[in-house]
Amino acid sequence: MQKPSERKLEIVTVSARLFKEKGYSAVTMRDIAQAMDIKAASLYNHIKSKQEILVLMIIAIAEEYTETIRAIAASGETSVEKIEKVIQLHIDITVRNPDALASLNNDWMHLPKPELQYFLQMREEYEDIFRAIVKKGIADGEIAAYNAEVIIFSILSTIRTLYLWYGKKKDFNANVLKTNLKKVLLEGII
Amino acid sequence: MQKPSERKLEIVTVSARLFKEKGYSAVTMRDIAQAMDIKAASLYNHIKSKQEILVLMIIAIAEEYTETIRAIAASGETSVEKIEKVIQLHIDITVRNPDALASLNNDWMHLPKPELQYFLQMREEYEDIFRAIVKKGIADGEIAAYNAEVIIFSILSTIRTLYLWYGKKKDFNANVLKTNLKKVLLEGII
Repeated sequence: MQKPSERKLEIVTVSARLFKEKGYSAVTMRDIAQAMDIKAASLYNHIKSKQEILVLMIIAIAEEYTETIRAIAASGETSVEKIEKVIQLHIDITVRNPDALASLNNDWMHLPKPELQYFLQMREEYEDIFRAIVKKGIADGEIAAYNAEVIIFSILSTIRTLYLWYGKKKDFNANVLKTNLKKVLLEGII
Repeated sequence: MQKPSERKLEIVTVSARLFKEKGYSAVTMRDIAQAMDIKAASLYNHIKSKQEILVLMIIAIAEEYTETIRAIAASGETSVEKIEKVIQLHIDITVRNPDALASLNNDWMHLPKPELQYFLQMREEYEDIFRAIVKKGIADGEIAAYNAEVIIFSILSTIRTLYLWYGKKKDFNANVLKTNLKKVLLEGII
């Protein structure tokens, strides 16, 4: 995806907040214009529709996840280091943009057909790469030999719902979160 | 809550499946009657409304969670044993009834006011009890001294979204899940 203009990024940021507050379906282009304190006609100079905003918002994040996990997988690090980097990736994106992540999780099904396919394909690739990292870690004896699907579910369910928790605790220190969450997910609590 | 009749339980089971498939708002009393192969008038002999079904479905599960965690907290076991029992409780309810749990998670906001208050109060009590167990475990040196809120979020996010994962993997052996998930959540993966 091409890098959008400053103005488009501003529209995306404001819309992410509105989508989260009222739900994607309930938000109108007029609401977005109002929240930006501009005329609706002026908003249409920058962006065609609510769906275009959703595409800019969700596809950018999904591409960041996909490109980063590809780079992590291709690196020469150990499986445990790779998993740490994946946890770090989720925390970074969550801390930077919890509203857009909420939209990714709640509203992805409203994407237009081609972008929906692209999104689902990226999500599947992401899970496949994560699965391969965990399985290699088990095969190499780096990771405990528990059921790989249970390990994958356990870690992904936590890092994927982080935006819900972090959205309510904005004053939580991001470094405390990083250090503690990596420890808890990798080493457990006992 | 009083124990509902056999017929009411059947209505709840069929409705849980429909709510999950089509979304609570899109399901009509007529759809439910049709799925049970009875006349709508006959359905109304047993149950007044879709909301009454939702109350029966969600409040029963919420009460089971609340009563069981109270009993776990009051027992003489160690904090780690108590956390294991809480994980077990979530797996048991998920395996028994993933459809109703989906409704609890997606549709609780459609409960009538008094039941909504009661539900939110139970959910808060549940989290408070779980938090107290974790904090006592840390204070006693049974649980690693990581940030308590991160530990609580990490475990709850996994066991609360289990219904999503398990709903897609119905053939997954419940005992394999229990053994592995307890190990992964308590002892980590390395």
